[in-house]
Amino acid sequence: MNFLEQKILKDGVIKQGNVLKIDNFLNHQIDINIIRQIASELKRRFHDVEVNKILTIEASGIAIATMLGHLYDVPVVFAKKGQTANSTDDKYMSQAYSFTHKRMNNVFVSKPYLQPTDKVLIVDDFLADGQAALALIDIVHQAGAKVMGIGVAVEKGQQKGGRILRNDGFHVESIAIIEEMNYEEQSIRFLEQ
Amino acid sequence: MNFLEQKILKDGVIKQGNVLKIDNFLNHQIDINIIRQIASELKRRFHDVEVNKILTIEASGIAIATMLGHLYDVPVVFAKKGQTANSTDDKYMSQAYSFTHKRMNNVFVSKPYLQPTDKVLIVDDFLADGQAALALIDIVHQAGAKVMGIGVAVEKGQQKGGRILRNDGFHVESIAIIEEMNYEEQSIRFLEQ
Repeated sequence: MNFLEQKILKDGVIKQGNVLKIDNFLNHQIDINIIRQIASELKRRFHDVEVNKILTIEASGIAIATMLGHLYDVPVVFAKKGQTANSTDDKYMSQAYSFTHKRMNNVFVSKPYLQPTDKVLIVDDFLADGQAALALIDIVHQAGAKVMGIGVAVEKGQQKGGRILRNDGFHVESIAIIEEMNYEEQSIRFLEQ
Repeated sequence: MNFLEQKILKDGVIKQGNVLKIDNFLNHQIDINIIRQIASELKRRFHDVEVNKILTIEASGIAIATMLGHLYDVPVVFAKKGQTANSTDDKYMSQAYSFTHKRMNNVFVSKPYLQPTDKVLIVDDFLADGQAALALIDIVHQAGAKVMGIGVAVEKGQQKGGRILRNDGFHVESIAIIEEMNYEEQSIRFLEQ
């Protein structure tokens, strides 16, 4: 069992409705040691890939993306999201449905921050239905840039995001993949990698 | 002139209405080298202060806070914001008016992530009217914890936030303090520190 699986078992809380709450170390309070290990492990898993930009989406992807940008020594871009459709003249825009907030969000990146020469590693804290990742991929492609891989801390293996992305031929790395969660027993089974 | 003042002069864009746009290196695309320098400089300026937690507010404060948490080796907490007033049983909540979005935001932190023993350094990318900083201070005090200082990258010296906070006795450090901006001439004068 790796460091993140151990941390999830120790500090994660399973809520009803297949919700895993890990905001005590990943997406509200940040355990900086875990973020460092996540970033190192993602860099290790993508060691054979050239990366010159890290792309994530606000807000909770930013911590991992910053630490990864620090390790790679490359710029980090975080896509913004909002409900309102502003002028898109100067932005690449896509859409992602937020299951948490039950609404469609616009996701956008200002055009100067993605160039056709960019080799982009997309990172995020969670991969579930893949809505955010698919929106980010769409944006990278609009810019004529290349998606070198998608790296996430926690993948909810019961949801379809990882399957869609891998079927589309993307190199996806998830440090912990949850195969099964049981609310009554507060138990989690991870996919062996 | 320090590294951040130089960077602002080189890459910042002054927009009409006293708006400084530095989203090419700080709050949309992140120049990781600048973030590293900002974090180091804030740690240097607060060297005589004990800190065991970094607090910021989503989204654009997270990059600086993460790098600072990495340097201090302490947990980082980012306050969340939203318009809806959810149950506050398990949260410390305050309010901040967003001049950018022209609305009042609730700002909240889950109670377990601020303890009375915490010595908190509040950090953010910008300090203008001080709305976000005052909300974070309010939240730290609700938790019975201590505000050790407020560190920001860029302070808009023409706006009242810095004055309010310093008058209240807080130790405020801003790496670049803008004294005057001129849209027609695209010129910026910084306060000498």
